[in-house]
Amino acid sequence: MTRIGNLYGPDATFLGVPGADPDDAPSWRGAGAAIIGAPFDGGTSHRPGTRFGPQALRTTDYLPHDGMRPSLALGVDPLIALGVVDLGDVEMPSGETERSLAALEERVTTVAAAGVLPIILGGDHTIALPDVTGVARHVGWGRVAVIHFDAHADTGDTQMGSLYGHGTPMRRLIESGACRGDRFIQIGLRGYWPEPETLAWMAEQRMRSFEMSEIVARGLDAVIDDALTLAADDCDAVFLSVDVDVVDPGAAPGTGTPEPGGLSSRQLLDAVRRIAMESNLAGVDVVEVSPPYDHAEITAYLGNRVVLEALGGVAWRRHGGRSPAAPLLG
Amino acid sequence: MTRIGNLYGPDATFLGVPGADPDDAPSWRGAGAAIIGAPFDGGTSHRPGTRFGPQALRTTDYLPHDGMRPSLALGVDPLIALGVVDLGDVEMPSGETERSLAALEERVTTVAAAGVLPIILGGDHTIALPDVTGVARHVGWGRVAVIHFDAHADTGDTQMGSLYGHGTPMRRLIESGACRGDRFIQIGLRGYWPEPETLAWMAEQRMRSFEMSEIVARGLDAVIDDALTLAADDCDAVFLSVDVDVVDPGAAPGTGTPEPGGLSSRQLLDAVRRIAMESNLAGVDVVEVSPPYDHAEITAYLGNRVVLEALGGVAWRRHGGRSPAAPLLG
Amino acid sequence: MTRIGNLYGPDATFLGVPGADPDDAPSWRGAGAAIIGAPFDGGTSHRPGTRFGPQALRTTDYLPHDGMRPSLALGVDPLIALGVVDLGDVEMPSGETERSLAALEERVTTVAAAGVLPIILGGDHTIALPDVTGVARHVGWGRVAVIHFDAHADTGDTQMGSLYGHGTPMRRLIESGACRGDRFIQIGLRGYWPEPETLAWMAEQRMRSFEMSEIVARGLDAVIDDALTLAADDCDAVFLSVDVDVVDPGAAPGTGTPEPGGLSSRQLLDAVRRIAMESNLAGVDVVEVSPPYDHAEITAYLGNRVVLEALGGVAWRRHGGRSPAAPLLG
Amino acid sequence: MTRIGNLYGPDATFLGVPGADPDDAPSWRGAGAAIIGAPFDGGTSHRPGTRFGPQALRTTDYLPHDGMRPSLALGVDPLIALGVVDLGDVEMPSGETERSLAALEERVTTVAAAGVLPIILGGDHTIALPDVTGVARHVGWGRVAVIHFDAHADTGDTQMGSLYGHGTPMRRLIESGACRGDRFIQIGLRGYWPEPETLAWMAEQRMRSFEMSEIVARGLDAVIDDALTLAADDCDAVFLSVDVDVVDPGAAPGTGTPEPGGLSSRQLLDAVRRIAMESNLAGVDVVEVSPPYDHAEITAYLGNRVVLEALGGVAWRRHGGRSPAAPLLG
Amino acid sequence: MTRIGNLYGPDATFLGVPGADPDDAPSWRGAGAAIIGAPFDGGTSHRPGTRFGPQALRTTDYLPHDGMRPSLALGVDPLIALGVVDLGDVEMPSGETERSLAALEERVTTVAAAGVLPIILGGDHTIALPDVTGVARHVGWGRVAVIHFDAHADTGDTQMGSLYGHGTPMRRLIESGACRGDRFIQIGLRGYWPEPETLAWMAEQRMRSFEMSEIVARGLDAVIDDALTLAADDCDAVFLSVDVDVVDPGAAPGTGTPEPGGLSSRQLLDAVRRIAMESNLAGVDVVEVSPPYDHAEITAYLGNRVVLEALGGVAWRRHGGRSPAAPLLG
Amino acid sequence: MTRIGNLYGPDATFLGVPGADPDDAPSWRGAGAAIIGAPFDGGTSHRPGTRFGPQALRTTDYLPHDGMRPSLALGVDPLIALGVVDLGDVEMPSGETERSLAALEERVTTVAAAGVLPIILGGDHTIALPDVTGVARHVGWGRVAVIHFDAHADTGDTQMGSLYGHGTPMRRLIESGACRGDRFIQIGLRGYWPEPETLAWMAEQRMRSFEMSEIVARGLDAVIDDALTLAADDCDAVFLSVDVDVVDPGAAPGTGTPEPGGLSSRQLLDAVRRIAMESNLAGVDVVEVSPPYDHAEITAYLGNRVVLEALGGVAWRRHGGRSPAAPLLG
Repeated sequence: MTRIGNLYGPDATFLGVPGADPDDAPSWRGAGAAIIGAPFDGGTSHRPGTRFGPQALRTTDYLPHDGMRPSLALGVDPLIALGVVDLGDVEMPSGETERSLAALEERVTTVAAAGVLPIILGGDHTIALPDVTGVARHVGWGRVAVIHFDAHADTGDTQMGSLYGHGTPMRRLIESGACRGDRFIQIGLRGYWPEPETLAWMAEQRMRSFEMSEIVARGLDAVIDDALTLAADDCDAVFLSVDVDVVDPGAAPGTGTPEPGGLSSRQLLDAVRRIAMESNLAGVDVVEVSPPYDHAEITAYLGNRVVLEALGGVAWRRHGGRSPAAPLLG
Repeated sequence: MTRIGNLYGPDATFLGVPGADPDDAPSWRGAGAAIIGAPFDGGTSHRPGTRFGPQALRTTDYLPHDGMRPSLALGVDPLIALGVVDLGDVEMPSGETERSLAALEERVTTVAAAGVLPIILGGDHTIALPDVTGVARHVGWGRVAVIHFDAHADTGDTQMGSLYGHGTPMRRLIESGACRGDRFIQIGLRGYWPEPETLAWMAEQRMRSFEMSEIVARGLDAVIDDALTLAADDCDAVFLSVDVDVVDPGAAPGTGTPEPGGLSSRQLLDAVRRIAMESNLAGVDVVEVSPPYDHAEITAYLGNRVVLEALGGVAWRRHGGRSPAAPLLG
Repeated sequence: MTRIGNLYGPDATFLGVPGADPDDAPSWRGAGAAIIGAPFDGGTSHRPGTRFGPQALRTTDYLPHDGMRPSLALGVDPLIALGVVDLGDVEMPSGETERSLAALEERVTTVAAAGVLPIILGGDHTIALPDVTGVARHVGWGRVAVIHFDAHADTGDTQMGSLYGHGTPMRRLIESGACRGDRFIQIGLRGYWPEPETLAWMAEQRMRSFEMSEIVARGLDAVIDDALTLAADDCDAVFLSVDVDVVDPGAAPGTGTPEPGGLSSRQLLDAVRRIAMESNLAGVDVVEVSPPYDHAEITAYLGNRVVLEALGGVAWRRHGGRSPAAPLLG
Repeated sequence: MTRIGNLYGPDATFLGVPGADPDDAPSWRGAGAAIIGAPFDGGTSHRPGTRFGPQALRTTDYLPHDGMRPSLALGVDPLIALGVVDLGDVEMPSGETERSLAALEERVTTVAAAGVLPIILGGDHTIALPDVTGVARHVGWGRVAVIHFDAHADTGDTQMGSLYGHGTPMRRLIESGACRGDRFIQIGLRGYWPEPETLAWMAEQRMRSFEMSEIVARGLDAVIDDALTLAADDCDAVFLSVDVDVVDPGAAPGTGTPEPGGLSSRQLLDAVRRIAMESNLAGVDVVEVSPPYDHAEITAYLGNRVVLEALGGVAWRRHGGRSPAAPLLG
Repeated sequence: MTRIGNLYGPDATFLGVPGADPDDAPSWRGAGAAIIGAPFDGGTSHRPGTRFGPQALRTTDYLPHDGMRPSLALGVDPLIALGVVDLGDVEMPSGETERSLAALEERVTTVAAAGVLPIILGGDHTIALPDVTGVARHVGWGRVAVIHFDAHADTGDTQMGSLYGHGTPMRRLIESGACRGDRFIQIGLRGYWPEPETLAWMAEQRMRSFEMSEIVARGLDAVIDDALTLAADDCDAVFLSVDVDVVDPGAAPGTGTPEPGGLSSRQLLDAVRRIAMESNLAGVDVVEVSPPYDHAEITAYLGNRVVLEALGGVAWRRHGGRSPAAPLLG
Repeated sequence: MTRIGNLYGPDATFLGVPGADPDDAPSWRGAGAAIIGAPFDGGTSHRPGTRFGPQALRTTDYLPHDGMRPSLALGVDPLIALGVVDLGDVEMPSGETERSLAALEERVTTVAAAGVLPIILGGDHTIALPDVTGVARHVGWGRVAVIHFDAHADTGDTQMGSLYGHGTPMRRLIESGACRGDRFIQIGLRGYWPEPETLAWMAEQRMRSFEMSEIVARGLDAVIDDALTLAADDCDAVFLSVDVDVVDPGAAPGTGTPEPGGLSSRQLLDAVRRIAMESNLAGVDVVEVSPPYDHAEITAYLGNRVVLEALGGVAWRRHGGRSPAAPLLG
């Protein structure tokens, strides 16, 4: 049996949903979605701590850990409606990058192949490489669009001399052909990285990267419109990758490379929900929550709610619900 | 003499306004508003600490504690114009819920009956039950509309087997008839609570609950318009209950049950001010500020300013002032 | 089934020992010791937060949560040797003191009556009343000596008008006769409480209270010698009650009423171990760990190790081991 | 040689740009801009700590400290394009206000006179007096407009009996004639200070102060339009003074006098950038970042980015770049 | 009336003792001791924040702020027995060193001259200059021995070019003749300051400085024996100056210049108590408590208890009490 | 040129000593000791963050960063007397363990071979493997005794399936023969790791491990006596490896695997000094300082002072000084 629960700390499942052993596929094959912990921070270029991200994303809540979360806005309980299970963490020692990534890729591939939606809890953004690769093996090589919320493009060629790290996964994914560059959509970029050479490479791949100034000028809703249209064009599914640092550090201090001037929490939650409601999600990861730098658990709460909004949108799409903007008691 | 000052810590009044002994009514009967501390956190379902809320709300400021606060935006000093006094805390041991609530209800009732506007500093939201009840005894049973800012509906039937707690006061208030369900207006709800049964009960009462998705879709101004219109319809006064967790945890980390995706501080301050300017306030409470979870006192500052905006609006309504949106030096 | 796991947060057992349902006595009756969580902070007179103590004491460790902890010093693994189980928390809403204390007393009584050593994780010190009472019901009324580590005597007559609170349990225990006053041994008192009247009452009961100045003058070892001698005189067993504030605030900041000038962590751990090795322990509680005030989990680690040292000493006494002061590798 | 590096801590330059010795003018005279540290907090009226501001503003970043920062939005690297140097700190003991201010004024005057743009890192806002004075000596007495982001007007007559302090510099500047009152533009004021007498003085000077309520009502873009128009009218250059407390405490907790209800980080960064792009900047200071009150360095990051946006706008204006709101990858 | 209460924050007296107006001498002339706040941090060479020291030392306690503190160890309530009053803070703007020191010196002189024991709450150690000077004016120039607990000698010649700062007061005191160098006793020195030239000056003055290595080698009790003997030799009284950084940073993190390897809290408290019991104290200051760097208030608690132990020893000497090392209930 | 300064943050040397480029050996070959930063945390089994250890150990001090530190106790300035240089960090990406360790081993070997004493600043304890190996290559294989302060034995066989990690380096060192097991001396062990199998292996190697209970029973001085005697027996030099977690978490919270009940700061500083004075040190590392978990920099200060005490002892041995326990001004 390989279930290892939470690699760092007690074995606890995402808000109390049933746990399952990854090696016992019959026990989880019928689930609508499966939580996978990726407690790896060996790829961060600055502040570490995301190894404790899965633990925090699973257990940070003031409500009972009873495996139920009825969404006020959506009128559906995603944990119940979808039948979410938690497969525990993948063993990913942070000092062993390649071995760790391989183990995660295998786990994601297995889950996706079983027709179960993988929800991967990071860990640093290095894990997007195995996450999307694993999903692409199932959906089709080059058939998965990526919608990527982040302050950073993560398209570096190398990082401290390595091909792997939280600054390079998107490049690896496009190079391998797992994803098409022209269906790779980035939302929230800002700041002072990467340098022009990498931007030129990104332009060559025809990536679509929305820097914050464009988002402010046009409004986030219009940007999401564009993203959904592009993602649906000649691709079969969408992988949603959410780096919590897309949100302003004021609301997401617990992360490794904070960049001022980001989205509000509300904006991110609404955008994630809408993407999940309006596209065919084939995989999700939520990354870069670093508890040692958090305060009063606010970043962990935010990450937990990003997961719930993504699951909620999927549940709403599959099982129906209410219109979020309508009067609640209407 | 029963003045107990601040139950936890030194006796200090709200920003230095005159203190008074609740038992010596002549000393405070002429005041325009009276501060009442409710240092109770026995009703919180998760992170405690609001027992230190009254202390923090009274004393967190960088300006001299001299009992003067001229509002830039409103052109009136509410502490001076209204003549605000501070009656100190009510003795409310957190392990003795019913006794504590009874003592607070008596205090609020006494103050309201004297024609003095009660401003109650929580404490957890359990205290809304005695706060509104006390005011309703004065204004008229069922004649007080409630405008309630919160991430949570607080309409649970019971909490850990008890009728009293910060998740249930709104239900108790409607059940008792102190307030009409159809004049109970909630702004800022979000997240994953309560469950459908409770929502059904709320709908039966014809409560009006604005979930954040509706607020984002329509804009907060329109929501406040609706709230003011409804509150003024066949009611004689408004009780304003502000749970600081209506604000996003990024700006209000110091609270017990933070829910990402809330209002900005600016939105809350503007809304509170406007409600105080445009309605007949008969009572206010500001609750759920929990200093142990705060950072750099930012939540305490926010709570202090919510009190000042509410008082400012009342002072402006009673005594006049300037138009907030006009040029300051115009 | 009544197992509620951890009342605040996910269900996780003490360092991964097996969980059991209190209502299913056959499942745990053969255990050598049972962990009971008492997540109650309604009795604290100042900083709350000990409701999160059981969670912290169970889950704070850097080692795998695998239910194994071989003691270097003692040469025995208390979790394995004793067969420790975790019965989860007792439902103890902090605003409902009497109901909560009654529920805990019933749980402790049941466990002790089954011949299983109860290890209660607080919670504030109010819980010593049900803890010792429950054990005394099993061992014999007045037949349990108490060794009580604390900065405070906890012998107040009332607290904010209540008989129950963390300042009064020792008085209640002696009044009821559950314990004899002259077999009530206090170690580590200091500071400015209680006042002379209460000290006079304590002297009348012939309590033996070691203030820090006496401990410094004589040495802690001599004090423990006295304590063990007295406790063994005409009593059948010892209840060990450890308030983490007996340790200096530098090493135990995460507590409600810190009093400078306490023991070092090393002193407390050695003393607890020795008492467990050299007396007949019939019950243990570890109280007043308040995570909101902790830093880097150091108080939680300390509390966890106090539990392990107590269990280790019991295991050593029952199952043998090595001499702690001898060279480790023999 | 007088280069003192960072007065408190190791000698490190702003993000690794070349350091230079202020006394060796030939070594820096050709630079486009020069960083000057003003580690003074003797003028704050409440929470100190800004003496560590220059250190934090220089060294807080997750990217290599290599003296390069290509702006994504602007398509230019301001550090390289402008040739920014760092002259280290001015020796400013916080207990010696007049001597410290004189030393800073001399440094700023020297730099401005050499035709190098001075970028002063505070320190508390007291330093605006020498900063603007020094620039005015170069540009022309009364020929520099000031655009001042702040929650506070800083136009007090005296502070604790002194003419100098962070509450008075703007008054001193207008009194001396260094700046015209009617070209002194304040953005972001709010709260409960100053009192009516000071507001009357400000009105007499024909200052233009945008309180937050006006900003919310009209939108920040319109306010910046007004500011730029006014600043360009019969003045030769603009001094930009940014007090980080103009931003809401949620995103800028690390400051001395936080006032809830401020701008978002995004708003401030966009406004600073635009002002630098659209006006003739002759000097900049960024003040009131207080690291002891910061969390996870978020305020330090914000301050660092304010400096970079100002420099970026200047570089863009001088050397060209891309349109920020256009799609990033063209 | 000049009483200004607490310069930063609400007016609250030391643990609730009666407040008095310094200008109304009859109101306090009969007191046994008077608290004087010196909220000045303009002299610190590194981390500021001690301006909030008086506030923290006065108000940090979990017991009621009722002006009573019966000492367990001493069997006397120093606040009651002595009749302690609190004269509030002296106005000491941190940027105005000389003016601030002069104001404090005047206050201390006035109090001492009235025969009231001054207890000054710092503030940084710069204040020892006016504190001891004021006392020496009363007791006799050169007739006051100083017992000085500190990690640092504070005998620098100048600090950043100034004669005044927390690194120089002891030199100024010996230079002025207020104290004799050979009756200046320092306990707890360690680390890497001052340099040999200053040590040579100290040796010339025949100061007696106990570095930690000597303390460890001989034991603190023997050192205190020496100190008391020397202090009583041809001097009329003792001034006790306690810099909280004499304690190890683990127990006193909230200070400006922490130096590892210090005394334990217990050692300091016992030493202060003993000195107060066994010498003729004419003045006390407790300095360098810096709340912004504190955690869970532990340094503030320690500072508060240092004050109480000093007062306790004085009360015991004047009014009698019990033997601290005897059994408490004996 | 390969000097990379501080891998994470600005280039700053240890307290301002001269920097040098490792590739330019002539520039540093004459130094008495060389600082080497090892910013690696890929080997920690729990809380990360030690990658920021070198930065913190180099720059945490309140004194000027001027490359001078005259020791009060020793009467010698180790930085000046020895001529200490700082070679900057080794590039050690935390996700690339083997490559990182190889790079560090090469650096240490080069420095030791040049006759310069290497002082390595960790990083996690994984680095002891390359540190001691590099020194042994110079001194002689099996000719270096190791004195190892730690709460943990670090002799695990593997860690998460890897040979390398902070739990295994001591085993690798003995296996390779770089050190003899019977000259491997461990001081401060405690807690619940390793398990009996590993202890058996340690006993087979004839390691000498002092658990805290033995240290308490015999006194630390006697233990150091034994250690020095053993280390000097048939070995040519000593490598001193100091894991800051040997100190109690109260004084060293900023570390990855805190274990209550450790040494005091004073004990560690004295022991390190004495070992450096009384043995032939050939290398030193100071590891496991993790700034994200530190408070008020107290652990960083402690680590900095451990380095200074080690250097101080070496300087005293080489260049003379005073007797630490003698009167300072004697």
